Amino acid sequence: MGKSQQSIKPLKQALVELHAVFAERVQTGTAVCIQHGHDESFHEGAAPDCVIAVQSTEEVQQIAEICSMHSVAMVPWGQGTSLEGQVAALQGGVCIDLSQMNQVLQVNAEDLDVVLQPGVTRRQLNEHLRDTGLFFPIDPGADASLGGMASTRASGTNAVRYGTMRENVLNVTAVLASGEVIKTAHRARKSSAGYDLTRLFVGAEGTLGIITELCVRVYGRPEAKSSAQCTFNSIDDAVQTVIEAIQIGVPVARIELLDHLSVQAINSYSDLDLPQMPLLLMEFHGSEAGVKEQAETIAAIAEQYNSVDFIWTTDPQEQAKIWRARHDAAYAIKAMRSDGEIWSTDACVPISKLAKCISDTVADLEESNILAPIVGHVGDGNFHLCMLVDHKSAKEVAAAQALHERMIKRAISLDGTCTGEHGIGYGKREFLQHELGPAVDVMRSIKAALDPQSLMNPGKVV
Amino acid sequence: MGKSQQSIKPLKQALVELHAVFAERVQTGTAVCIQHGHDESFHEGAAPDCVIAVQSTEEVQQIAEICSMHSVAMVPWGQGTSLEGQVAALQGGVCIDLSQMNQVLQVNAEDLDVVLQPGVTRRQLNEHLRDTGLFFPIDPGADASLGGMASTRASGTNAVRYGTMRENVLNVTAVLASGEVIKTAHRARKSSAGYDLTRLFVGAEGTLGIITELCVRVYGRPEAKSSAQCTFNSIDDAVQTVIEAIQIGVPVARIELLDHLSVQAINSYSDLDLPQMPLLLMEFHGSEAGVKEQAETIAAIAEQYNSVDFIWTTDPQEQAKIWRARHDAAYAIKAMRSDGEIWSTDACVPISKLAKCISDTVADLEESNILAPIVGHVGDGNFHLCMLVDHKSAKEVAAAQALHERMIKRAISLDGTCTGEHGIGYGKREFLQHELGPAVDVMRSIKAALDPQSLMNPGKVV
Repeated sequence: MGKSQQSIKPLKQALVELHAVFAERVQTGTAVCIQHGHDESFHEGAAPDCVIAVQSTEEVQQIAEICSMHSVAMVPWGQGTSLEGQVAALQGGVCIDLSQMNQVLQVNAEDLDVVLQPGVTRRQLNEHLRDTGLFFPIDPGADASLGGMASTRASGTNAVRYGTMRENVLNVTAVLASGEVIKTAHRARKSSAGYDLTRLFVGAEGTLGIITELCVRVYGRPEAKSSAQCTFNSIDDAVQTVIEAIQIGVPVARIELLDHLSVQAINSYSDLDLPQMPLLLMEFHGSEAGVKEQAETIAAIAEQYNSVDFIWTTDPQEQAKIWRARHDAAYAIKAMRSDGEIWSTDACVPISKLAKCISDTVADLEESNILAPIVGHVGDGNFHLCMLVDHKSAKEVAAAQALHERMIKRAISLDGTCTGEHGIGYGKREFLQHELGPAVDVMRSIKAALDPQSLMNPGKVV
Repeated sequence: MGKSQQSIKPLKQALVELHAVFAERVQTGTAVCIQHGHDESFHEGAAPDCVIAVQSTEEVQQIAEICSMHSVAMVPWGQGTSLEGQVAALQGGVCIDLSQMNQVLQVNAEDLDVVLQPGVTRRQLNEHLRDTGLFFPIDPGADASLGGMASTRASGTNAVRYGTMRENVLNVTAVLASGEVIKTAHRARKSSAGYDLTRLFVGAEGTLGIITELCVRVYGRPEAKSSAQCTFNSIDDAVQTVIEAIQIGVPVARIELLDHLSVQAINSYSDLDLPQMPLLLMEFHGSEAGVKEQAETIAAIAEQYNSVDFIWTTDPQEQAKIWRARHDAAYAIKAMRSDGEIWSTDACVPISKLAKCISDTVADLEESNILAPIVGHVGDGNFHLCMLVDHKSAKEVAAAQALHERMIKRAISLDGTCTGEHGIGYGKREFLQHELGPAVDVMRSIKAALDPQSLMNPGKVV
């Protein structure tokens, strides 16, 4: 992915001014620039012209003012764990590395919220909260930064109970293209004061401004946790079990689906011997009695749907083992093919359409000869297709692209979305257009209103 | 509140064109126009020039096209239950009455969502769902329309568990000023596809476009419900009980605070004999065992905070009686003063600041000689001040305004918001500016981008 025809002179002038402010903190070395231009996706990266590790909102403002003056692009960087090319500097410019802005600023235990800088990672946050009885539930797998998670509207395994970043960010402080700073809301738990700018910045992938501080909800750590695993004869049976459990209001904290291929992968990688059939993994949070009741209720439902077994445990080590295996699923899948790279993509459909969407996709996969295990946050109707592709084989890449396009369009045609939790980046722009049509024009109007020169993470989302 | 200097000619021309399409459905009678120009607030109304009860998205489009052509204002109407002057036609123009667009279009029981027209009211929706085992939890008190509730980001007593309209609208179809129609999302439970236009339209009070269809989340009706009431010596004790209950994760469905004046009002209006002291009313949803456990947990916490009594019941009639009294609180308060009108306002603060915000407000009230009971959705930090004011007394109105301003600024200074659930309308615009400053400029940019002539509910929010 080459850089656009941005003329060299304004960039040069911007670099001179940035040097005047940041001195040797303006890093222009090839290695550091390349490293900051690609994420964990299958998409090609694009290096920025320089990287600056900022320390404060004011420093981001200074960069924005200089870049705006000279029409130079700005791309924010958290941990580089995005999955749709969000960090690629498609037009070069300045990578604003926020990873050193990693202070937890306030823990408001009574209010169940935390104010923090965007470079704090989710593990760091939970480590910080260790002695407070609180925890932050959103867990996208990677140890992403909170700023990045907000910007991509991340979610993960706990979303079925605790929601996504959409529901869990109370406000953000953002630097706009002009260098102006706004705070989108105060810390009140709810508000009907004007347009919901918080939700507008959550998921905007840095294209409207750069988040330099945020306030997120946290939760009291549950008194008890238990986990369960249950094998089914078919994906449909597994999904019907989940639908019924959610309908009657079982407040399951995680409910994950693995298809037989994923089970095969984790069996081999994590030394387990699960039956190679569709599997549900569940976690329950509540009181001692509550987690028992939840598990029993789901076991009874699963039985109606021909569950093969239902194993329940409150033993922390056994629970850790099974969730470790789920977390390692990406590595396990990667290990299935030594000459393949993983192309991880996701879609999300109404749960009533999930079994059909997955089974049609599996049939398509079988015809395409692409190895692609499926794991899903089934409570949300969200599933991941982990295609193993040799990116040196043009034929294979083309087949994967075609399969991917069919899968996304299938999800959209089932009233679903082209991305449940990975965002648009530059990898899914055409699908966003396919999904929402005229609404994307409204997004473009908003982008143009807030960033008229299109300098904030250009080429992403819209 | 007079109309602005909109020239008569474009309006006349627009009316001619509207007549050509809608014939006698263009209502211009004084009575109908006045009726559609005021809501349930203390704020003065302003009549539109005509009212058209629309039947479809296409009809709204036709009106928008004609109004845009001639620069005539459009104000949407649901049930007129707003509380900050949202429906006042400050610049005259066309009132688009959506109350006849009241069809429930789809009940997707497996997906726990419902697609409906904006004129459906919350009671009508729950009536419609009666035999499905599902219910819609958001309950702002009034039998508001769902379109209006979405537009004002309404919430109410159940928000502590089920969230507000922000969390419970999955998508909206909206007609923009230009007449263009957009749909903000599909029905997938979560999505990270582009800017969150759904949340942008929720709470925009019709200033960015008119909602003509929406999809909302519904929930399985809980197996069991129970209610409790508990009297405290002080508001602080009541609030501390709630904080601790929420911290340890008791999933209370409603938790309402009434101050001693509100208790006095409902005692007299609803023939109850509650101690005239701060009162918590609670409702629990769950399994039989679950609701018992929730109540016992809270009773134990309340005891630590010197609760005077704790009365728990699963009897449906007793529960109905207590919640009826809570719902009638506004009438009960109104009945406290025959020559006064009720000026209902709200604010919301982080729950750790709630006791201070309320007690400082009570002290201020006592000095001001304004009678104003307080009721609160205490789990959210949201409280309502119900001032009883003789609006014919300029002195009293001025005193109430000053008190109101101090209360709102107090809430904002405690990291809160000028409105938890009533919206901005034209009654709280100055406070929005006070609360969010530069962020309001961003709201104005968005408004200008989507509605460059400022025809959609002009004079509201921004």
